[in-house]
Amino acid sequence: MSSQDVQRPVCIIGLGLIGGSLLRDLVASKHAVYGYNHSTSGARSAIKAGYDVTDDLQAILTRAEADNALIVIATPMKAVASVLDEIQQHAPSCGITDVVSVKTEVRDLFLERGMESRYVGGHPMAGTQNSGWDHSQTKLFKRAAWAITYDYAAECEARGERIPKKWIETFSDVVRMTQMVHAEAVPVRVANHDAAVARISHLPHVFAETLAVVGDNGGILAQSLAAGSFKDGTRVAGTTPELVRQMCETNAPALVDALDEALQLLQDARDSLAAEQPSVAELAENGFRARTRIEARSGARKESVSPVKISSRPVLRLHPGGPNWVAQLRQSESLGGRIEIF
Amino acid sequence: MSSQDVQRPVCIIGLGLIGGSLLRDLVASKHAVYGYNHSTSGARSAIKAGYDVTDDLQAILTRAEADNALIVIATPMKAVASVLDEIQQHAPSCGITDVVSVKTEVRDLFLERGMESRYVGGHPMAGTQNSGWDHSQTKLFKRAAWAITYDYAAECEARGERIPKKWIETFSDVVRMTQMVHAEAVPVRVANHDAAVARISHLPHVFAETLAVVGDNGGILAQSLAAGSFKDGTRVAGTTPELVRQMCETNAPALVDALDEALQLLQDARDSLAAEQPSVAELAENGFRARTRIEARSGARKESVSPVKISSRPVLRLHPGGPNWVAQLRQSESLGGRIEIF
Repeated sequence: MSSQDVQRPVCIIGLGLIGGSLLRDLVASKHAVYGYNHSTSGARSAIKAGYDVTDDLQAILTRAEADNALIVIATPMKAVASVLDEIQQHAPSCGITDVVSVKTEVRDLFLERGMESRYVGGHPMAGTQNSGWDHSQTKLFKRAAWAITYDYAAECEARGERIPKKWIETFSDVVRMTQMVHAEAVPVRVANHDAAVARISHLPHVFAETLAVVGDNGGILAQSLAAGSFKDGTRVAGTTPELVRQMCETNAPALVDALDEALQLLQDARDSLAAEQPSVAELAENGFRARTRIEARSGARKESVSPVKISSRPVLRLHPGGPNWVAQLRQSESLGGRIEIF
Repeated sequence: MSSQDVQRPVCIIGLGLIGGSLLRDLVASKHAVYGYNHSTSGARSAIKAGYDVTDDLQAILTRAEADNALIVIATPMKAVASVLDEIQQHAPSCGITDVVSVKTEVRDLFLERGMESRYVGGHPMAGTQNSGWDHSQTKLFKRAAWAITYDYAAECEARGERIPKKWIETFSDVVRMTQMVHAEAVPVRVANHDAAVARISHLPHVFAETLAVVGDNGGILAQSLAAGSFKDGTRVAGTTPELVRQMCETNAPALVDALDEALQLLQDARDSLAAEQPSVAELAENGFRARTRIEARSGARKESVSPVKISSRPVLRLHPGGPNWVAQLRQSESLGGRIEIF
């Protein structure tokens, strides 16, 4: 174990697409990691493939407590509350993170139980329209942003309180874990996270569903003529409705705001297309400019002379617990930057 | 030249992404083909690459007339009227097709000039967000639907008139041309075409623009967190605004209808997400079902035991001008099917 590795075993609760892929990556880098899956068939598949996996939640939490493991909650949102209750009982001192796609609702569950000092939220911006252990894979997180929340530290600081060393260790280990799977750690507070993902993840899902329905209403001829723009635009409508509902319904206030913005733009475009001189100039020009900016800023790019892709997210190296480190997190957040720790 | 090839040279007016790719494919299959490009730099690039290309429109049309060539109009919509005027003057007897993404407006230009008996409309459902000769490529049309209009034949029939042999030859050659570039010929009347593409091409563009703007409004943090669903959903917002405007504004009535359907679905989803018990169940379930149906029906699929992909569009073999052939076109259209001719 190098100083860049998570400094303790990792215990993953829930082995779907995200939890399963995390397990595979950590095993591939020879880190101590074990997992639990609720579905016995999923657990059996994972065991058969040689992974250290069980369908006994109490047993795995008892083991995590004995190991001082970092617990990763990778269940659907609706299971988080009951998992937290089990953790309180069987793993009362482990640090905890999660990978759920909304952060306010998860944090509220920790606050209700007085568990916030054990919690560092997480959300890897990776995935496909598929779900479940069978679709999990190595390298899913490569170069993906992995949002890491730090509200607890910011609130301690605002109250003039010292941030507990244990929380700082959990935060550091979550960052290290994301680096072990080649993701990029992006610090963000839960409200800002939820507002951002409403725009760039939940609204795209609502749009894809809508486009699929309108296309389908056109009947078999329309579908026969459908090509790239329609297929790309509806891809994530292939996500199971259950997952879409959990993402969107648990982030409803932020998503309603994003939808209201979108509805206004669409209504304006509709009205100017219905005018005597039909026009979609404003939307087409603003959309093109927006897309151009986004392409220039986001994701990995190649340097002109090197074949190595580098991240376009600005990087900030910081020492958790060091002077001014929470201010550094805020600065990085405002830039959508990634952090590395030393 | 086999009986499956176009029975005369092809003259392409406009060498952007579509016209240029068509030129490359026909040259690759050793068919006699030449082209015109308005932009001298585009024409120069094509000439440099060894293609039979000019920037002299009158000269190329005079040549087409002497050759009895099939003329393919592959310019932007806004240039079609003036190209037709030139064709009337310099190539008064050639058969004509086009590749413009709307069909009613193009057909109206032919009707205004009394040129409808020379016209078989076309629209290849292929392309990328890029445009211009520099992005043209071989094999762009492979397995793509290529809509081919037959309103003139249907109207002759409705009036109890014989369909002129020359129109039937033009129709046959347009079908053969699509087959030479490995596209699938889908017969469709212009109004049905325009209603369908409003749903599956123009609405996706409007959605992509909207999503890009709402995402961009979230600032640099939102963009840093954006992943697959956002990138896929905004891809075609990278299309030049000029092209998006031409597609959408020339198909405004059909697009407004599609937008109204979409706005209703989005407004309903917004309202049920803003309710005390937020829900997006209806849209998520309908969208998933629609996408599943679309995936099952459209595009190429692999047979379970063969590596060869086959089309999922039903095929109808017909003899243009034979008994009942227009009824066969209607039948194929109603199934979104493809035709082969003999």
